[in-house]
Amino acid sequence: MGLALGELAGLLGGDLHGDPDCIIGSVASLQQAGQGAISFLANRAYRKYLTATRASAVILEAAFADECPTATITVANPYAAYARAASLLSALPAKRRGVHPSAVIGAGCEIASSAWVGPHCIIEDGVAIADGVQLAGGCFIGRDSRLGADCVFHANVVVSHGVRIGERVVLHPGVVIGSDGFGLANEHGHWLKVPQLGGVCIGNDVDVGAGSTIDRGSLDDTIIADGAKLDNQVRVAHNVRIGAHTAIAACAGISGSARIGSHCRIGGGAGILGHLEITDHVVITAMTLVTKSITRPGVYSSGFPAQENASWNRNAARLRRLDRLARKMRKLEQQLAPSATD
Amino acid sequence: MGLALGELAGLLGGDLHGDPDCIIGSVASLQQAGQGAISFLANRAYRKYLTATRASAVILEAAFADECPTATITVANPYAAYARAASLLSALPAKRRGVHPSAVIGAGCEIASSAWVGPHCIIEDGVAIADGVQLAGGCFIGRDSRLGADCVFHANVVVSHGVRIGERVVLHPGVVIGSDGFGLANEHGHWLKVPQLGGVCIGNDVDVGAGSTIDRGSLDDTIIADGAKLDNQVRVAHNVRIGAHTAIAACAGISGSARIGSHCRIGGGAGILGHLEITDHVVITAMTLVTKSITRPGVYSSGFPAQENASWNRNAARLRRLDRLARKMRKLEQQLAPSATD
Amino acid sequence: MGLALGELAGLLGGDLHGDPDCIIGSVASLQQAGQGAISFLANRAYRKYLTATRASAVILEAAFADECPTATITVANPYAAYARAASLLSALPAKRRGVHPSAVIGAGCEIASSAWVGPHCIIEDGVAIADGVQLAGGCFIGRDSRLGADCVFHANVVVSHGVRIGERVVLHPGVVIGSDGFGLANEHGHWLKVPQLGGVCIGNDVDVGAGSTIDRGSLDDTIIADGAKLDNQVRVAHNVRIGAHTAIAACAGISGSARIGSHCRIGGGAGILGHLEITDHVVITAMTLVTKSITRPGVYSSGFPAQENASWNRNAARLRRLDRLARKMRKLEQQLAPSATD
Repeated sequence: MGLALGELAGLLGGDLHGDPDCIIGSVASLQQAGQGAISFLANRAYRKYLTATRASAVILEAAFADECPTATITVANPYAAYARAASLLSALPAKRRGVHPSAVIGAGCEIASSAWVGPHCIIEDGVAIADGVQLAGGCFIGRDSRLGADCVFHANVVVSHGVRIGERVVLHPGVVIGSDGFGLANEHGHWLKVPQLGGVCIGNDVDVGAGSTIDRGSLDDTIIADGAKLDNQVRVAHNVRIGAHTAIAACAGISGSARIGSHCRIGGGAGILGHLEITDHVVITAMTLVTKSITRPGVYSSGFPAQENASWNRNAARLRRLDRLARKMRKLEQQLAPSATD
Repeated sequence: MGLALGELAGLLGGDLHGDPDCIIGSVASLQQAGQGAISFLANRAYRKYLTATRASAVILEAAFADECPTATITVANPYAAYARAASLLSALPAKRRGVHPSAVIGAGCEIASSAWVGPHCIIEDGVAIADGVQLAGGCFIGRDSRLGADCVFHANVVVSHGVRIGERVVLHPGVVIGSDGFGLANEHGHWLKVPQLGGVCIGNDVDVGAGSTIDRGSLDDTIIADGAKLDNQVRVAHNVRIGAHTAIAACAGISGSARIGSHCRIGGGAGILGHLEITDHVVITAMTLVTKSITRPGVYSSGFPAQENASWNRNAARLRRLDRLARKMRKLEQQLAPSATD
Repeated sequence: MGLALGELAGLLGGDLHGDPDCIIGSVASLQQAGQGAISFLANRAYRKYLTATRASAVILEAAFADECPTATITVANPYAAYARAASLLSALPAKRRGVHPSAVIGAGCEIASSAWVGPHCIIEDGVAIADGVQLAGGCFIGRDSRLGADCVFHANVVVSHGVRIGERVVLHPGVVIGSDGFGLANEHGHWLKVPQLGGVCIGNDVDVGAGSTIDRGSLDDTIIADGAKLDNQVRVAHNVRIGAHTAIAACAGISGSARIGSHCRIGGGAGILGHLEITDHVVITAMTLVTKSITRPGVYSSGFPAQENASWNRNAARLRRLDRLARKMRKLEQQLAPSATD
């Protein structure tokens, strides 16, 4: 658990200015780092901490290297290089293997010998668990679901029946995959349940944050493509499709049958209505409500920033009558138009 | 698992145009359906798929029957008829019965012999579980709670103590019923917990989606009436009352002591403040904030639709000064009023 | 389980008007209370129920004592006094002790003999559980985490590794503490996970509501100070700091590295962006989006109240063009300015 700076620079593909034999044992923030730690500067807001850092080395862009009082590894993308350095230097928990005796395993399951099924897990009939999968404990995997190699499921994850999950998928505590969608037909004022017969298909390298829920499809599958990243308490409804490498921040809600492209970024608390399509490379800012399809890449918003309550109340009261105001304006314009031509 | 078309049409109360002896084995979407499958047209957006469908039959309104290249069952409400057809044609998992040996059962419980208590369930003292109830696994039922016949609780559901649940209630994974409400009294800047002494009473045929939470009452009960349907990650605070056959979409939050009528529809991400009343047959659209009681049926909104960020920022900046703008307008009107009468 | 009114008045520090020997056995609302119950008036909206109450006594402000038909205990803060009375009069479940045989306990754990580890709990290696802690069942406590005295964790709580929790902390069902933050570096369009190496530090007397999630820090800790109260489905991101005695209502989301002061109140569904600071004694109303630091105590808002849908749609359409409207207004003003000086 320690790398020479020269070796680390090589692994990160960066240029080293400093002693290549200096041993780096950990990562730390610019303010907290001490001897033997490497830090990074990725957000300019933290540049003020650079000159006083006591880190043994700092990963940063070449443009800021002159301000650094210690060794530097200069790279084009310091945050990504830091992520790699942190992975190299942090002690990941050792992988476990086997099935804890308290786990309950159904009939006809295929569980790789290199996988770990932790305490109190419930694995229903016909489940397939590939090499290296780690189920922390208290997880429920419904019948006939398939988990790809090296998936990591934290405690109390629930995967319902007939769900297909790719490789290296990480589900944080309390995640639910494959719950029934909100399919209801109204008949004479009563709600009739529409059976949810589809499944969920999750690609490789997908992360889903604590408490998020992804519903199964009603007929076809709900699909999360490779490399998509979902934060905590995200809600994905039935038959949604999320494109590759799209990131969705916490508390966002995606309604049924919405299709979100690749490389999108959905802000926290955003809401996306059902049966619409968002093209690739779209950014939705926090607490925005998307009511129509978005066909051009770009940034879209409707979250209104906080204001002192007294001013806000006055403005909100005016907004309540904004149409009237606009019509008055139109009248004034008409009234003035002839006088302008007089 | 297969029904003659004639029999199916009879069960759905529809008119058949086609071969009554054709055997239908499954349901599918218009695009995916093949030989032996029945499909449906409920949303006009999918009408474009009708002429090319390879389904053996389609459930639809009589008005569209001419456009259908295959057998039809015409009904007044195709979505409801489809829901019934899907229930008839899909293989529901067989009901289980008994108590899994890993379940922990308290003293003085009454558990019907036709009920199933799955692995790792925890049933505290004095719980009553009626006929046909299915607890998937990892469920916790607190002391003295009562579950009505044919309830289905998916994995890792938590029901706290003293909760009464009706018949055929479905709780999806991770649902929490009967947690303490957010009752706090402020005393000299510190928060004092107000004991939450009420319970929760849930009617018949209620569904609650994955990750939703329903708090117990502080003194009286929190009440969810018959046939109410809650989507995922819905939050119901203490002493809320939700009327019969009301549907609440995902991520909506209902604050303490709010009363929502029957046959309402609350949109996703909507927020309803506490101690207010919403009458029957009210529709609240997505991401709307309800701050006052609503006494007339109708549709209510305040969620603002997304716009390109640059335009939105300009508009939001103007909204910040809307009151000033309105006052300027008033001045202009006054200035022009006399000239108009000149 | 019953107190003489005189004794109760003394314990609450209030003035009694009535028979000090009357035995009070329970608390109840003004409408529901009967013989032997004490009620309270804290919210003026309920004053209408005062004159008809059949409670044996009522806790209220002196100003309303005359309207009360029964014995009164007058205090300055009736809601806080009621909270104390309810605590005194309600039967809390007896504390349990020991470790349920179905619990799975790791190596090197220190579990106080007065603590209770309920059924199907999973306690990983090196965990310390102090005196009187109560873990209801199905809880997961990750390696090396420390729980202070008299914590109460309800069913299916997950605490990840390396989390420090103070005394008397209450976690409601399904709470997740110490999950990975949403740390991602983008490299050529792909997301690279940034290891989340910090922990979570929770002070004394903190409550966290059902389904809430608190992420661990990326390098330094996420910190929740003493006496903070979080409602259900609250989302706290990595490296957030929440000050003492701050209350956060349901469904609010706090983004990464935000710092919230002491004695703040954050409304339901509010969103607070990352890397900003909110000073002490700030109130954020429901569904408000905070996009900048707030340096002055006060009340801040941006949640817009519901309106009839037809009016709202017209107003929203105008808001979409508000900047244009404002520019037109400016033109009118300029057009009129010279004529005004004519």
